[in-house]
Amino acid sequence: MSKVLIIGAGGVSNVVVRKCAQNSAVYSEILLASRTKSKCDAIAQDIKNIPVHTAKVDADNAAEVAALIRDFHPELVLNVALPYQDLPIMDACLAEGVNYLDAANYEPKDKAHFEYSWQWAYHDRFKEAGIMALLGSGFDPGVTNVYTAYAKKHHFDTIDTLDIVDCNAGNHGQAFATNFNPEINIREITQNGKFYKDGGFHEIPPMSEHKSVDYPQVGPRESYLLWHEELESLVKHIPEIKQARFWMTFGQEYLTHLRVLEDVGMTRIDPVEFQGHKIIPLEFLKALLPEPGTLGQNYTGKTCIGCQLTGTKDGKPQTYFIYNVCDHAECFKEVKAQAVSYTTGVPVMLGGAMMLSGKWSGKGVFNMEQFDPDPFMEEIGKWGLPWNEAFGSKLV
Amino acid sequence: MSKVLIIGAGGVSNVVVRKCAQNSAVYSEILLASRTKSKCDAIAQDIKNIPVHTAKVDADNAAEVAALIRDFHPELVLNVALPYQDLPIMDACLAEGVNYLDAANYEPKDKAHFEYSWQWAYHDRFKEAGIMALLGSGFDPGVTNVYTAYAKKHHFDTIDTLDIVDCNAGNHGQAFATNFNPEINIREITQNGKFYKDGGFHEIPPMSEHKSVDYPQVGPRESYLLWHEELESLVKHIPEIKQARFWMTFGQEYLTHLRVLEDVGMTRIDPVEFQGHKIIPLEFLKALLPEPGTLGQNYTGKTCIGCQLTGTKDGKPQTYFIYNVCDHAECFKEVKAQAVSYTTGVPVMLGGAMMLSGKWSGKGVFNMEQFDPDPFMEEIGKWGLPWNEAFGSKLV
Repeated sequence: MSKVLIIGAGGVSNVVVRKCAQNSAVYSEILLASRTKSKCDAIAQDIKNIPVHTAKVDADNAAEVAALIRDFHPELVLNVALPYQDLPIMDACLAEGVNYLDAANYEPKDKAHFEYSWQWAYHDRFKEAGIMALLGSGFDPGVTNVYTAYAKKHHFDTIDTLDIVDCNAGNHGQAFATNFNPEINIREITQNGKFYKDGGFHEIPPMSEHKSVDYPQVGPRESYLLWHEELESLVKHIPEIKQARFWMTFGQEYLTHLRVLEDVGMTRIDPVEFQGHKIIPLEFLKALLPEPGTLGQNYTGKTCIGCQLTGTKDGKPQTYFIYNVCDHAECFKEVKAQAVSYTTGVPVMLGGAMMLSGKWSGKGVFNMEQFDPDPFMEEIGKWGLPWNEAFGSKLV
Repeated sequence: MSKVLIIGAGGVSNVVVRKCAQNSAVYSEILLASRTKSKCDAIAQDIKNIPVHTAKVDADNAAEVAALIRDFHPELVLNVALPYQDLPIMDACLAEGVNYLDAANYEPKDKAHFEYSWQWAYHDRFKEAGIMALLGSGFDPGVTNVYTAYAKKHHFDTIDTLDIVDCNAGNHGQAFATNFNPEINIREITQNGKFYKDGGFHEIPPMSEHKSVDYPQVGPRESYLLWHEELESLVKHIPEIKQARFWMTFGQEYLTHLRVLEDVGMTRIDPVEFQGHKIIPLEFLKALLPEPGTLGQNYTGKTCIGCQLTGTKDGKPQTYFIYNVCDHAECFKEVKAQAVSYTTGVPVMLGGAMMLSGKWSGKGVFNMEQFDPDPFMEEIGKWGLPWNEAFGSKLV
């Protein structure tokens, strides 16, 4: 029975709070804080079985976060705020000696990076403080890391290749909208593609490599090679992997919108002088686009995310695909969220439960694949993200 | 030998100043004023044969404009600033008793209109003050109005239909840019299309009617029916016209960009709350796009703008097309401007010369078609915009 501080009040936070309340054997009390307290209140008002308090906090400010922690005494901080805010929130946890979990790696505001180096640099300080940080406990990164560790533990002696495939075949009925924070979404796909091969990372121009992938329960969808942060941690922690890639689906209309927005400069993350103010075009674009949290209501279709691995088992070649399929409309029925928020929020709750129950423990900064996958895999289906596996056929 | 005040320092202004200097028999001294004095200085520094003074002015502020007029004593104010500023500049001319000319009709900031009503409402006051305003002395409106008056005078007893066709077949090598003020350009084409038929104006959804038009020296180009202000004045002053339409070419890429920018809300002209400031999305977009004045350097290809008329002459059916073809690269060689700025700027200079020489005179507010077209048509070719005519074949 644990108290947690949840920071952030977007689409993912809504799922995390509801799922924590469903898991009241572990989560007994929540303080939900974000820059806009009214967004916290809107989420909290639906939760009846455990107390959910709300507060206003500027998560860029470590001292403000630390003050909340001192007042509330949580055992764990679940960070589902903006990735820019990972470091100040980690600083606050260090200062107050509280465990930390997030779902997306730190990224500086002025440049798209998606690297773990900044957060891994906290390892010794977390270790010395006797506390634990669990990084990237969403779906991808997160469940994909656990899938890979699970495959390694049960189905491979050696993994040669890893292809993470992420398909959203949903339709939200909007001309253009992003499924999670548009700033992050657009940063991710306007930077160079990058993959791991033969001991090094290789860059390619943005969206320049793509192929049709036939997703279970969805069908063939054009999928684009792009950089995703879990590749960095997975090849570090499973160094036998010779090649690791990440693929994501995009519709032609989405790509056309993106190309135009780049053409005119609206995806820039450097500030532009405008009428005496410094405006970051991508932030202004975000203000115009629909809030991802509002997309759920009329969302139809499914997501399919998984890991395809090749390698050897008992001296024979092995090909294995492990994946989840999630339905937008069913997610909305359950927690008033679309599947992209849902698939990210459930693992935040469950990763936290692994820490609070002591099934995953350590002192320092960790990624998901560093822990025994079995207790997580035993529970994740029950919380809404059942997994399937297929042997033999190759998707990518 | 006359002194003129030129307000505005964009691409058109650059052409007007250079053309006035070429016509030093009429224009002897210029005061060039705009919000940004450095832009005036950049234009003025190339002019050696007549004095060009520069000044800073906020053209939204009639009192500031009036103060400039009092200091400089011009005979005429050439307004090539933003259309929002037509009324304060007209107010200043009224206050100081100075003649006025512009190239685009007044438009309020908060709503796209393109109607003459606001400026026509100044007629009695200009008349009482004994001064003259010449509205819309660019190419379209402007030369197209004179073409129509010329056709009426020499080639028709009765005009039945008028189709103004405006083709820019140039290539500026940019992913997306507008050829004149992007705010105005985008306002023009995101509003409903409108045409005149059988005594009334009829609206259609934006860009919903289009056809291929085979332009002389250019070839076939898809052309879209849209509203253009000269239709309003031409059917008022030549009331026999039964149908009047305006067509403009757009490339598929341009339209795709426009559709996306509309989808995401970047063409909105209502203010959006953003980080404590009120930002008009279209104005912010304008700040990101290339300045139209900078497009000239690598611009290739031609423009073709003209009027196709049908009706009767001497009891027989008459079909007539009168047009100009202008080459972007040649314009740049002559005046460091692309053809869209050039075709607008030359008629500003010549319309002003018509007023200053007394060939066109009156007290009140006038459109170009209200004057004898012959002296204008005699000169316009010499200043860089020669015209061609064709009888018989129909383009539209």
